[in-house]
Amino acid sequence: MSGEQLTGVVDAITPPDAAARAAAVERLDRMTKPRGALGRVEDLGVTLAGIAGACPPPVPEPAVVAVFAADHGVHAQGVTPWPQEVTAQMVANFVAGGAVVNAFARRLGVEVCVVDVGVAAPLDAAPGLLSRRVAAGSADLAVGPALTREQARAAVEVGVGTARELVAAGNRCLVTGDMGIANTTAAAALISVFTGATRRRSPAAAPAWTTSRWRARRPWWPPHSPSTGPTRQTRSASWPPSAGWSTRHWPGSRSRAPRCGFGAPRRRERGRRRAGRRRVRPGRTAFWVAGHRSAEPGHTRALAHLGLEPLLDLGMRLGEGTGALLALPLLQSAAQALQDVATFDAAGVTEKQG
Amino acid sequence: MSGEQLTGVVDAITPPDAAARAAAVERLDRMTKPRGALGRVEDLGVTLAGIAGACPPPVPEPAVVAVFAADHGVHAQGVTPWPQEVTAQMVANFVAGGAVVNAFARRLGVEVCVVDVGVAAPLDAAPGLLSRRVAAGSADLAVGPALTREQARAAVEVGVGTARELVAAGNRCLVTGDMGIANTTAAAALISVFTGATRRRSPAAAPAWTTSRWRARRPWWPPHSPSTGPTRQTRSASWPPSAGWSTRHWPGSRSRAPRCGFGAPRRRERGRRRAGRRRVRPGRTAFWVAGHRSAEPGHTRALAHLGLEPLLDLGMRLGEGTGALLALPLLQSAAQALQDVATFDAAGVTEKQG
Repeated sequence: MSGEQLTGVVDAITPPDAAARAAAVERLDRMTKPRGALGRVEDLGVTLAGIAGACPPPVPEPAVVAVFAADHGVHAQGVTPWPQEVTAQMVANFVAGGAVVNAFARRLGVEVCVVDVGVAAPLDAAPGLLSRRVAAGSADLAVGPALTREQARAAVEVGVGTARELVAAGNRCLVTGDMGIANTTAAAALISVFTGATRRRSPAAAPAWTTSRWRARRPWWPPHSPSTGPTRQTRSASWPPSAGWSTRHWPGSRSRAPRCGFGAPRRRERGRRRAGRRRVRPGRTAFWVAGHRSAEPGHTRALAHLGLEPLLDLGMRLGEGTGALLALPLLQSAAQALQDVATFDAAGVTEKQG
Repeated sequence: MSGEQLTGVVDAITPPDAAARAAAVERLDRMTKPRGALGRVEDLGVTLAGIAGACPPPVPEPAVVAVFAADHGVHAQGVTPWPQEVTAQMVANFVAGGAVVNAFARRLGVEVCVVDVGVAAPLDAAPGLLSRRVAAGSADLAVGPALTREQARAAVEVGVGTARELVAAGNRCLVTGDMGIANTTAAAALISVFTGATRRRSPAAAPAWTTSRWRARRPWWPPHSPSTGPTRQTRSASWPPSAGWSTRHWPGSRSRAPRCGFGAPRRRERGRRRAGRRRVRPGRTAFWVAGHRSAEPGHTRALAHLGLEPLLDLGMRLGEGTGALLALPLLQSAAQALQDVATFDAAGVTEKQG
């Protein structure tokens, strides 16, 4: 996939359907409940109608969570007490069904898809594991670009391709997660560059945040530009339109080759000099739903930058897509309500007087 | 059921199992994730283990939502623009499966049980509707006690009896909701008496709150006592122990006949002069989980009074148990994780160093 082709992918993303959104608003007001009584669940219903281009929208199912796994060269800097070998061990745990993402997915009826985008150690083939290796781990962002430009593009393509495969397989809601020891440092550094954040924002701030703030000052990192894109910590459950596309295939660049794919690239360190620092185009996040606000303080900065308000705030900071998974029943319930709930007329219920 | 028998019901409620709680804490620390990385979901797992007396706890299912319906005499004061007939119409809507609670319950695999505790209009018998009428609506709390003492006790017994029936039928998680036009006024008045709150706490405060604040000043309302009990707006998903009991059968009184049952009495106006104003005994709310924080400002006061922190805060203010239902997948996922997730040893994953 060339840069031009990736740009075409981005340009093919159309805004949500305004008519379906309006129909959902109107239907919500006729449903047997006081107006607005479902709060943000009503907003979710409107969002889903706009994405689907239909009112009532179909329930977003089946859902799949894609967990993108890769190693980060910055591990060499001692930014985490976890050994790098844990990345590969956790991939084995995902494939065996023993991780938290598996337990949550099992409970919620969601399939788990594990994608090896670049785990340092070689992995055995296994059912449920897609091998889409871009490199055997990224380079150390503390001493140079983490990925070459070609690697970055290949990583974006892994995201795009995985989303296409999963939608082609029948999935109607894509949930993202990731795994990779030292990823918090990479994410914090990216957030610093994208949002300009340089200070700890919470007493719970991880040491990694401070470390990466320093990293972000390295000369091969670009200066802050306020008009930049998304970061890895966006835990979100989205729902692609029937065309098989969503803005999960998210680019950071308006005119150049997109730099961000389904999920993995958002989590991976990469050379940022020319990559993905342009403004989010209107409507680009309209297909995203932020599931959970991470306890990692940088996440709040990232969400604010994206204009997303998460549905859940339970103090989680695991990754793997676990936060997004727990928000999925809210999306599905919102759509189910729009489908099933009787209107005042149909149910013979008297409306509010005056 | 006499007052002494109700006291016996309360006294039979034992504290959560400390050993099972400790085992859950220990297991959570051995699971393949960083310690504490699941935030409040870990707390939920510990709570469920304590309630079940087992670690890992069983997944709290099947669940049932009991919607207690009744009319409120204070409707005569013009406290709401909704006609009183809507209570009976909404009961018919519940029974027909057309309300929001039905849509959410259908999505989440939960049974709906509607209990007529005192709807003003006579209701036709229907599958899924339990007739447990205490009165044809309460009296007007603006001009005198809403219920006689005997009616209040009978209403408590409806709650206790319904919970027993639902547990005997195999349910392992009881969710409560209610329906009754003018219930917000009754609830606000009760919260005012129980918590001492007399001011609007939010710009979103409903006019009913102001109205009922005035009502609470009527001479037949008791003065505020800080050592009092629960209120109707506690939307919670709880999970009774295997004995078939939970503190949902909640009493407001330590030494007298309990005044609050499964749910309905918490929503109904009633004579408060001698009823239910004693301190919550330790452990009494340990079997409750608050599902959702209502947009009604009094609810936050009530939850703070009970020492409960809700899982969701989505701006909902519908009732029917809809907020609690949406929190149910969180409980179930918490238990599933404790059951399924591999430990570091079992999965061969290396632990954090140092």
